[in-house]
Amino acid sequence: MSTPAIVALLTDFGTEDGYVAAMKGRLLTGAPAARLVDISHEVEPYNIRQAAFCLNNCYRYFPEGSIFVVVVDPGVGTSRRGLLIKSQGYFFIGPDNGVFSLMLESGKGELFEILMDSFAAPVSSTFHGRDVFAPLAGLVACGADYFRHLQPAEGVVSFVNPPQITGENEISAEVIHVDHFGNAILNIRKEHIGEISATRPRLRLGKTEVSGVHRTFGEVEKGRFLMCWDSSGYLQLACNLGNAAHELRINVGDKIRLWR
Amino acid sequence: MSTPAIVALLTDFGTEDGYVAAMKGRLLTGAPAARLVDISHEVEPYNIRQAAFCLNNCYRYFPEGSIFVVVVDPGVGTSRRGLLIKSQGYFFIGPDNGVFSLMLESGKGELFEILMDSFAAPVSSTFHGRDVFAPLAGLVACGADYFRHLQPAEGVVSFVNPPQITGENEISAEVIHVDHFGNAILNIRKEHIGEISATRPRLRLGKTEVSGVHRTFGEVEKGRFLMCWDSSGYLQLACNLGNAAHELRINVGDKIRLWR
Amino acid sequence: MSTPAIVALLTDFGTEDGYVAAMKGRLLTGAPAARLVDISHEVEPYNIRQAAFCLNNCYRYFPEGSIFVVVVDPGVGTSRRGLLIKSQGYFFIGPDNGVFSLMLESGKGELFEILMDSFAAPVSSTFHGRDVFAPLAGLVACGADYFRHLQPAEGVVSFVNPPQITGENEISAEVIHVDHFGNAILNIRKEHIGEISATRPRLRLGKTEVSGVHRTFGEVEKGRFLMCWDSSGYLQLACNLGNAAHELRINVGDKIRLWR
Repeated sequence: MSTPAIVALLTDFGTEDGYVAAMKGRLLTGAPAARLVDISHEVEPYNIRQAAFCLNNCYRYFPEGSIFVVVVDPGVGTSRRGLLIKSQGYFFIGPDNGVFSLMLESGKGELFEILMDSFAAPVSSTFHGRDVFAPLAGLVACGADYFRHLQPAEGVVSFVNPPQITGENEISAEVIHVDHFGNAILNIRKEHIGEISATRPRLRLGKTEVSGVHRTFGEVEKGRFLMCWDSSGYLQLACNLGNAAHELRINVGDKIRLWR
Repeated sequence: MSTPAIVALLTDFGTEDGYVAAMKGRLLTGAPAARLVDISHEVEPYNIRQAAFCLNNCYRYFPEGSIFVVVVDPGVGTSRRGLLIKSQGYFFIGPDNGVFSLMLESGKGELFEILMDSFAAPVSSTFHGRDVFAPLAGLVACGADYFRHLQPAEGVVSFVNPPQITGENEISAEVIHVDHFGNAILNIRKEHIGEISATRPRLRLGKTEVSGVHRTFGEVEKGRFLMCWDSSGYLQLACNLGNAAHELRINVGDKIRLWR
Repeated sequence: MSTPAIVALLTDFGTEDGYVAAMKGRLLTGAPAARLVDISHEVEPYNIRQAAFCLNNCYRYFPEGSIFVVVVDPGVGTSRRGLLIKSQGYFFIGPDNGVFSLMLESGKGELFEILMDSFAAPVSSTFHGRDVFAPLAGLVACGADYFRHLQPAEGVVSFVNPPQITGENEISAEVIHVDHFGNAILNIRKEHIGEISATRPRLRLGKTEVSGVHRTFGEVEKGRFLMCWDSSGYLQLACNLGNAAHELRINVGDKIRLWR
């Protein structure tokens, strides 16, 4: 007997209103043996990019066949599509608004549009997470026929945000995420930094200059800034035992110049 | 073989002190196969009405036989009773302080008082969640004899809060909840609004007037206010892609006049 | 067939970056049947003592054999050791930085150092939770051979913090934790207070004097301060239906004098 399917949930709902729990209830009603995993319900309300980043940080570590339900959905009830995407051995269910952008950079996806009207009425106009995405995930988790709720689709709302080469020795990066510890994650991966310097990129913010890429926080003194590769392969600006974003007043969307 | 029982937990404990985890441990010690579901532990401390609202938003979506343990319990250790309620195919366990009020509006309940002294000593005077409610839920989850800890009871502490008809064309509503997105939920259900207008209620707050009931947020422009039915059937005042409660300075308990 | 192993997770990661979910994914990939329990991910960043307190409040209620993964790890990537500790019928996995101090006061531990290099590359230098502790917990949960990743060890980084006897009738206590409700927990257990008074310790903070130990909050009027034993056996200073730490401006680390 195989292990029951894993359904992992990522929302911007918070937990205190019972909205997440309503989704969990629907899921368990449809798929009594499914195993629910909370990714997070603390994504900032409507913050699609944060959801995309969070999903990208974790999905690849789950067992094959895991189902991800992502409900950060400012356009619920409008004409935005709902999607089921098969990619890299996983199932992804959620709105077509960019939440799957980063995940789709790592592998091709087979896209399906969810036929909203195929679900039993009443479908709330404000809560597709409970009335569409959770029941669909339940069907997938059960191995039931979920294809009758889908039609093949093409194209997906996506944001990609590569760094800009601004000179022979210079690159303009953007802060794409500030994490719980105040690490500022840049849109720079190893393949980009090669264009500047394999060994010694530099960065300046106000009077603070940071140079080189360290292996880990503890290689610099407490309170000092450093650059290192984050656990998903992005370059991050950090502060050993401190909060870099707070101390350097860095926000998501800020541009930072790197050069050698 | 049937699926092991679901035990869903709702508290105002936060998670960072280990109090919720102590309950989880007790539950799993008593019922090793039980499947725990977190509803929320972020209810505002002592906020019984918020807990009642949260529970009411989710319990009906869970599989029959699910067990709900609700521990928002400002009177722990005093003479307030502990209850087990069977209602609508579910089990509800928690203090007799109103947390089950809204749930009991949807169906009759069979009430039992928990015999606190029937549990093995030591029972902490400050933590019935861990020492009484969790072990009892464990017994229910196992199908063990839990009746020896109960006696039939009548009456339950309850708050009901219908809107007031203040004129032929006018109703005085109350804000019963402000959710994570700043939606202000009113104590108005479809059966109430009929008394004003099936199609066109109006509401004014300061200089802001809102009229009509929309189907979903996206039917108005970004930043505009609207009324729509929330996902549990209450009328809510919302702001498309914004935070209505914050912008209109609405708090729980505020009275709002609706008319046609 | 026995129930699959329980793996309980305690971190300071928050959930919104996906770091916790990455650990969950790794765990479930290694041990598909393991049952994950969230203790908390809301420990204050880098707050080792808070993690130790939280763990101590809950671990003893879990079924024998449960596995606790504690990742509050400001020294990740430095030479601090990783530990697996067998104690009191449980497994504890995490950094050697004091997070297990309070737990080890309740029973002896068999200590093992984790051989970091024994794990398959790449091991991130900044995320041992995902790349070392979670895979190791997965092996333990499966009953697989985990000993090849360990070597016997001695000594463990620990803090102990007994109250100071400052006079025949006087003791200097320290606030070791402020909980979600504002209860200030002191480093005083029943064996200490005996040295002052079995029945009537007194405490003064500014103009507020509190005397005697109550059984529960509700024995004093709303808004009044009291001392009582917390649910883990420490003396706490509380306020019935209020927030004692906020009102008395108490912080962790504050010294408080008790006398008779």
